[in-house]
Amino acid sequence: MPSRADYERATIDAILDEAIVSHLGTVGPDGAPLVVPTLHARQGDHVYIHGSAASPTLHRAGKAELCLTASIVDGLVLARSAVHHSVNYRSVVVFGQAERLDASEDKLRALEAFTEKLVPGRWADVRPPTEQELKGTGVLRLSLEEASAKVRSGGPLDDEPDYELPVWAGTVGLRLTTTATRPDERLLPGVECPEYVRELTREA
Amino acid sequence: MPSRADYERATIDAILDEAIVSHLGTVGPDGAPLVVPTLHARQGDHVYIHGSAASPTLHRAGKAELCLTASIVDGLVLARSAVHHSVNYRSVVVFGQAERLDASEDKLRALEAFTEKLVPGRWADVRPPTEQELKGTGVLRLSLEEASAKVRSGGPLDDEPDYELPVWAGTVGLRLTTTATRPDERLLPGVECPEYVRELTREA
Repeated sequence: MPSRADYERATIDAILDEAIVSHLGTVGPDGAPLVVPTLHARQGDHVYIHGSAASPTLHRAGKAELCLTASIVDGLVLARSAVHHSVNYRSVVVFGQAERLDASEDKLRALEAFTEKLVPGRWADVRPPTEQELKGTGVLRLSLEEASAKVRSGGPLDDEPDYELPVWAGTVGLRLTTTATRPDERLLPGVECPEYVRELTREA
Repeated sequence: MPSRADYERATIDAILDEAIVSHLGTVGPDGAPLVVPTLHARQGDHVYIHGSAASPTLHRAGKAELCLTASIVDGLVLARSAVHHSVNYRSVVVFGQAERLDASEDKLRALEAFTEKLVPGRWADVRPPTEQELKGTGVLRLSLEEASAKVRSGGPLDDEPDYELPVWAGTVGLRLTTTATRPDERLLPGVECPEYVRELTREA
């Protein structure tokens, strides 16, 4: 895929903030790579990931180099020749050794960041984590010092002679959009859907 | 994230066929994991990835264990308590040692699969790869023997006492949809947008 590296922090931040899931790469005990999807949240110069405190992947990730990659697909790129077909995308790769958070207060702030990233405005409405829940949650903090972005945008790039071919070429845009909101079956009577949730589907 | 493992091949195939990009995990020369977004295409019991024949990542991936993970996000899950917030998703993890394709004919069939996966109906319209282009393309074939799927669907799962809280809970669906089709600036006059491309945006 043709792409250009982009090290601007603003670009890196925007991609991490928009991507809902990222992919966490670790090296397993047998030396083989393992890639799992995970939620993440950025705060300033760090990106946070979390999971069960007992998770082997999280445990490994807190003790060795890891790689966290977030990608957003923006469109299909249709060229005149087969080999120049591509996708428009934005991705961030973060390398480094993560720091495991120990203090309950730090974990609490990270869980707030996760919740607010998923649905801005949500944290104030929900039952906050108990001390027990915080103990059971593992949170890793990874510096953005070794982060880089790659962005491919725009139309196809064909070989010069191919521009003479009568083949349609162009792009088809792609975007992750909200569909329907579905209330939980056990919702108490009279509990209305909050404005910050209704807003999510209005944007669509 | 709560999830259940699902080893049904039909589920694995459907996820790989729907996901536009996947994430390829390899272990770098320094022993650190590297995760990069890549296009993939499934054919029967194998998934194919490709890149420049000179790509170090592809070279590494063809000589050692790798991990290819594809994930699709289906929705946001809003629980009554902070810690039970989640996303609905479908993901596939494929482990194994990939085989590097050498024969031009095999590479050609793989490039057809990539092109047809991106835009069904496209292959017949485009300028096919030359022998030189096939030489410059590296294609890896990975068996689905060690593939597994994880799927999270449905509403939030709260702790029993939390169902008494007057907090809105439910899901917000998410879907990758096509937006606009944009013809290339250098399109020859009179070349019409093909039906298989117009179909993509009609579905939206």
